Amino acid sequence: MTLEDLLSDFPRRDWETVSEPDERVRFALVGLGWFTTEMVVPALRDSDRCEIGALVSGSSDKAARLRDETGATRALSYEEFHEGAGSEEYDAVYVATPNATHLEFVETAADLGKAVLCEKPMEVSVTRAERLVAACDEAGVPLMIGYRMHTNPAVRRMRELVREGFVGEPALVEGSMCQNVFEQISPDPNQWRLDADLAGGSALIDLGIYPLNTARFVLDANPVSAQGTTRSPHEHFGEVDQHVSFEVAFDNGVTAACVASQYAQMGSSFSVTGTEGRLTLSPAFFGEAGLTAERGETEVAFSVTPVDEEREEFDYFADRLLAGRDPEPDGNHGLVDMRAVEAIYESAETGERVAVER
Amino acid sequence: MTLEDLLSDFPRRDWETVSEPDERVRFALVGLGWFTTEMVVPALRDSDRCEIGALVSGSSDKAARLRDETGATRALSYEEFHEGAGSEEYDAVYVATPNATHLEFVETAADLGKAVLCEKPMEVSVTRAERLVAACDEAGVPLMIGYRMHTNPAVRRMRELVREGFVGEPALVEGSMCQNVFEQISPDPNQWRLDADLAGGSALIDLGIYPLNTARFVLDANPVSAQGTTRSPHEHFGEVDQHVSFEVAFDNGVTAACVASQYAQMGSSFSVTGTEGRLTLSPAFFGEAGLTAERGETEVAFSVTPVDEEREEFDYFADRLLAGRDPEPDGNHGLVDMRAVEAIYESAETGERVAVER
Repeated sequence: MTLEDLLSDFPRRDWETVSEPDERVRFALVGLGWFTTEMVVPALRDSDRCEIGALVSGSSDKAARLRDETGATRALSYEEFHEGAGSEEYDAVYVATPNATHLEFVETAADLGKAVLCEKPMEVSVTRAERLVAACDEAGVPLMIGYRMHTNPAVRRMRELVREGFVGEPALVEGSMCQNVFEQISPDPNQWRLDADLAGGSALIDLGIYPLNTARFVLDANPVSAQGTTRSPHEHFGEVDQHVSFEVAFDNGVTAACVASQYAQMGSSFSVTGTEGRLTLSPAFFGEAGLTAERGETEVAFSVTPVDEEREEFDYFADRLLAGRDPEPDGNHGLVDMRAVEAIYESAETGERVAVER
Repeated sequence: MTLEDLLSDFPRRDWETVSEPDERVRFALVGLGWFTTEMVVPALRDSDRCEIGALVSGSSDKAARLRDETGATRALSYEEFHEGAGSEEYDAVYVATPNATHLEFVETAADLGKAVLCEKPMEVSVTRAERLVAACDEAGVPLMIGYRMHTNPAVRRMRELVREGFVGEPALVEGSMCQNVFEQISPDPNQWRLDADLAGGSALIDLGIYPLNTARFVLDANPVSAQGTTRSPHEHFGEVDQHVSFEVAFDNGVTAACVASQYAQMGSSFSVTGTEGRLTLSPAFFGEAGLTAERGETEVAFSVTPVDEEREEFDYFADRLLAGRDPEPDGNHGLVDMRAVEAIYESAETGERVAVER
């Protein structure tokens, strides 16, 4: 890629197939936690290809209040959603409930014949994630997993540069994602993200999955084995991993060393080092991404205007539906992360490197 | 530490006990490779507490030429050194020969009653490193291992900040050190650094040891177990590890995820993330070190005038000898790294987490 090409339209939507859509995809948003209300709702209000058809929550008050604020057609309880109430008001379902409940909402969406955009991690276990994929397959509805990095322009430019050989042969990945869940998400010590049954884990399955999945996306590679260590010194992390460090070997030979924490100083970074160069995202996973490119003794840092990552993700998903094409990353892609996450948790228990099944 | 204290004398030699030495420590420099000639000799010429007593090389020409250039008293062959020739001209011996030959030169130095400064890695195996320590112990001579990070002001300030709780509870370490050995060291495909017998390994034992040892120093902690993966796709790395990624658990609970490469884009970084903050050295291990401190949403970057790392290391060593005190990091400190390195190489073979013996 020439420098001019890189700079002239850095945030370009190279995925776009429908440039001037004459209809919008209407979403049911299921689960109105902070991410949906603070990140997704504003993104959809700005979008010219998505709109909010229904708001679905365990709290009728919350759904009704948000319906009034957003002008959405319907506010639904979880029960009403499962009964198919108001399903003529939406074309697709976005699932952002606690991890352990993704399956039931995706099954209902599939039964209703709706396309599904399911948040990461897909579910709390490989078994349940497989059932989730099967439900969509059997119903013949598209399923996309909400890895917002895939439509982040900095990540896409990084991927293109890796593909065209900018770093030479990719060799090593470093990645991290840390936050203070009590400050960034909620001060509640009983929040579902700290509940093993509802979340399936914490630092790794919620945050470590970002560098893991980004490595797969940027390298076009899949994990073959993994090992890791988890630790939970804080009293509110009795059941789940507060900190994790892990190492993954990919099918192209690259290995990755990563850390993640659910309660530590916030920060994220991601780099690919090759025989001839290095590409670094810093910050990487918190909405804005800075891209640095090194080769030999020279380094350039791209100063990039941040995009709305949720709008990019939803617009991409809508673009695929409007074009009648399958969206990616799909359910089978997500399953690979679930298998890697289970392998790392198993390794943390046994002390052994664990193969990631294909 | 107040900001004023930090800034007013960032590069201070807080280790100094002899401020105006009235004598100098005279060194025999054993092994006149690029590091000795390009890094150590200039440092000693600038020093006011060290001087070059003898130059010892397998090549008489090289030793004689460097003697003439530096004004050193003696040029010695390895054989002459082992015979004790000219040993009245030096007080201490710096050993920077290929790793597998450290033992023989340290044994001679110990027999001659000379203090020893031995380059890292100490040797090619735990067994030989133990013999090296025993030789110095039995002769009653001081032994220091050449970990230049210990006297790098940025590393020392980082350590002080960690100790006083700047990052809260330390949780995760990330570290990397990569170079292109053919560009940075020598284009020779037969150089000793790529020879398993002479080097004992490559990416890990030569480079990965930097983040490993710096973690120990900054955290005041020792490794309890480790795991890793090595890989050598390049034809000149048939015997030794070109790339390594590894993960280490320390006795204070902190875990580290690190990468190193002997043939990849040059670069180094080191960070400690805690519950309340993060400290990052970037670059970390190539002579200059930048220190960044984050806490909450605020970050400060210290712009530090680089010191001559070799001069700091040799002046510290000389200071300890002149004061009659034992220098650190000593041989037993170095042995812990050798055990961790062997554990990681074993893990790369077996796929299992390996305990680091104490």
